[in-house]
Amino acid sequence: MVQSNPVDPQVLILGSGFGGLEAGKVFRGKPVGVTILDRHNYHLFQPLLYQVATATLSPGDIASPIRWIFRRAANVRVLLGEATAIDAANHRVQLADGAALDYDFLIVATGASHTYFGHDDWGQHAPGLKTLEDALHIRRRILLAFERAERESDPATRQELLTFVLVGGGPTGVELAGTLAEIARHTLRHEFRSIDPSQARIIVIEAGPTILSAFPEGLRDAARASLRRLRVEVREGAAVTGVDAGGVTLGAERIAAATVLWTAGVAASPLVRSLGAPLDRAGRVLVQPDLSVPGYPEVFVVGDAAAYLDDNGKALPGVAHVAMQQATHAARGILGRLNGSPSKTFVYRGLGNMAIVGRGSAVADLGWVRFSGITAWFSWLFLHIVQLIGFRNRLLVLVQWAVAFVTFQRSVRLITNDEGRSDRS
Amino acid sequence: MVQSNPVDPQVLILGSGFGGLEAGKVFRGKPVGVTILDRHNYHLFQPLLYQVATATLSPGDIASPIRWIFRRAANVRVLLGEATAIDAANHRVQLADGAALDYDFLIVATGASHTYFGHDDWGQHAPGLKTLEDALHIRRRILLAFERAERESDPATRQELLTFVLVGGGPTGVELAGTLAEIARHTLRHEFRSIDPSQARIIVIEAGPTILSAFPEGLRDAARASLRRLRVEVREGAAVTGVDAGGVTLGAERIAAATVLWTAGVAASPLVRSLGAPLDRAGRVLVQPDLSVPGYPEVFVVGDAAAYLDDNGKALPGVAHVAMQQATHAARGILGRLNGSPSKTFVYRGLGNMAIVGRGSAVADLGWVRFSGITAWFSWLFLHIVQLIGFRNRLLVLVQWAVAFVTFQRSVRLITNDEGRSDRS
Repeated sequence: MVQSNPVDPQVLILGSGFGGLEAGKVFRGKPVGVTILDRHNYHLFQPLLYQVATATLSPGDIASPIRWIFRRAANVRVLLGEATAIDAANHRVQLADGAALDYDFLIVATGASHTYFGHDDWGQHAPGLKTLEDALHIRRRILLAFERAERESDPATRQELLTFVLVGGGPTGVELAGTLAEIARHTLRHEFRSIDPSQARIIVIEAGPTILSAFPEGLRDAARASLRRLRVEVREGAAVTGVDAGGVTLGAERIAAATVLWTAGVAASPLVRSLGAPLDRAGRVLVQPDLSVPGYPEVFVVGDAAAYLDDNGKALPGVAHVAMQQATHAARGILGRLNGSPSKTFVYRGLGNMAIVGRGSAVADLGWVRFSGITAWFSWLFLHIVQLIGFRNRLLVLVQWAVAFVTFQRSVRLITNDEGRSDRS
Repeated sequence: MVQSNPVDPQVLILGSGFGGLEAGKVFRGKPVGVTILDRHNYHLFQPLLYQVATATLSPGDIASPIRWIFRRAANVRVLLGEATAIDAANHRVQLADGAALDYDFLIVATGASHTYFGHDDWGQHAPGLKTLEDALHIRRRILLAFERAERESDPATRQELLTFVLVGGGPTGVELAGTLAEIARHTLRHEFRSIDPSQARIIVIEAGPTILSAFPEGLRDAARASLRRLRVEVREGAAVTGVDAGGVTLGAERIAAATVLWTAGVAASPLVRSLGAPLDRAGRVLVQPDLSVPGYPEVFVVGDAAAYLDDNGKALPGVAHVAMQQATHAARGILGRLNGSPSKTFVYRGLGNMAIVGRGSAVADLGWVRFSGITAWFSWLFLHIVQLIGFRNRLLVLVQWAVAFVTFQRSVRLITNDEGRSDRS
């Protein structure tokens, strides 16, 4: 292992999600000096975040220290910090603490956060699920709702405490709803003396005509049937017009609910605005065919922060394998350019779509084959566990899943403090 | 399973630490109505808390939901809430949210928190380790110190960031020091590019004449030798006279350190003051031979909140097995009194003392036998794992320990947000 030569070209990677991590891996041992900057010291395996929010997994099970991942790559350094602006003209990134980092090549992989479509005040009542802090906050809210209901004597307030609304019928909304239903119907059974947790109402509200819109109709039907068995109410074509501390409003209708969770909208990380490049409606950079930014061939944007239009003019979905393929393409493009090769057009290899609905139930659309039920559930489990970073994480997640599957037990049901959040409950 | 008869005598247990939990277990299925009140919804296995603070275990591994523990005991109800005052004359406990709970019998098992011996302002610079929030805060501080050192160019500031001071040479201070040394010397090796984590200074400061004062001299020597091998500096008979953001002062001497942790003093939970009973210097209730409060035979205090003097006039130590034995005695005393039996004097059966020093090294004094080294370490491990509540917790802790032992890996190295704490770093 040799330290990178200080005269090597310097590559700066912003973000250590699926995209940033994959780009870093391509550069391991190559004649470039690489810096990975992230606000957190860990890579987060986002597809399992809802399992932390619903008390099945611990934060440490789905997060790995970035330093540890790159410990053997002497040419890769990892810095903890937050980028606030990109000065593309001067090849420089500004950090929140006043420092700056210069680069020869830049890969922006800062992802997306949730958006409330102009209603930012809804955020304090309906938290979204993007970070570990979000997941712990949601876990706290869900568990506190049951605790408060146990001590509540007024029947109407008690029913409000036992009503859970999920705004957004995408994979995250469906996964949260299914898991919440299991918690109420099975995990918490026998544990309360004044309330019956199985009487909890769980409602998924989707503004579009259908839940899981990225899936074919047959699989959507299978998901709806699974949710029905779990007594989850599914409302499609129902637009939320208001969110407050007491519930949600849908036009003339009112649903009183103490817990409202938001999985409806995502917008690209605001950092990319400082590039001055053209953006789409979700704030994503409209990248060139080689994923670089118009006018700055040394700057690449990958993953959820990029809008890469397919042949139909539709942006690729914000999922892990898109980010990873784009990151690999951008990193190889940089290495190629250092060798004098021309830039290449990114070609996406579709890997399909999967969503979990509940214990032993999932839907999978791999393009050439579609399936649902227990087979899809095991495939989902297998694929997600092998993708987790580190032997320890895979083993722990497998053990916890096996215990939860057999016993319905969710032992990470800890109400921990998070008073630092602005949207405290 | 039958719900308890509402005319049964009502027992209220404050706190769900080792004492409160044990008392609750004695009452399972007995003809009393039991309420367990705690500020948290989980029982915390405190002896392993330092493993959370040093990133080996997750919070969920050492905490179990109280409701789950008592799910099959229909006569036991669990409430989340904070007691603020005990009105012993009226058999009533006041809660922070304005509610009140009446009782026929009361067991106070609210434990202790750390004390700064009148220097409460030291608390913001030198956090103690009593709660899960404390552990996560300390974990954040330790990890951030290394991250900041990596980005620091001034050598003096860098050394300050890499200096860790533990005030207090009891078991917790020694355990933290040993684990910190392993993190610096092994776990973080190869992960940084600008600093060498193994150059970190770790200093244990004990005001008394010796560390581990509850142990015999031979075992103390063994512990000192283990700490020396880990390059931990041990300062005995050294009183800290000042703590601030930049380090600690010992009389004329100054040690610059970005991270100072406090394991020196404990004081009983302030709630017991409202009993109006005589207290000792640490704020503990001087209980009667049957553990009841003078003047209130229906109120018992057990564990760290009680001072039970042995034949030499010395209070029993604040450890788990004292609390558990006292709780069992108090609970059986209540059941006996309901059957007309007279109250009995509490007799403590000493079970010995153990402390872990580092990987594969511990000291154990069981009274009839004393040993140190790897045998003591395995005994410590075994005893603590079997005492953990729930099969899942035991299995997970065993797996994580095995991985950490073989690989030196500590994967729960997550810097998560805790801005809500008043002593933010």
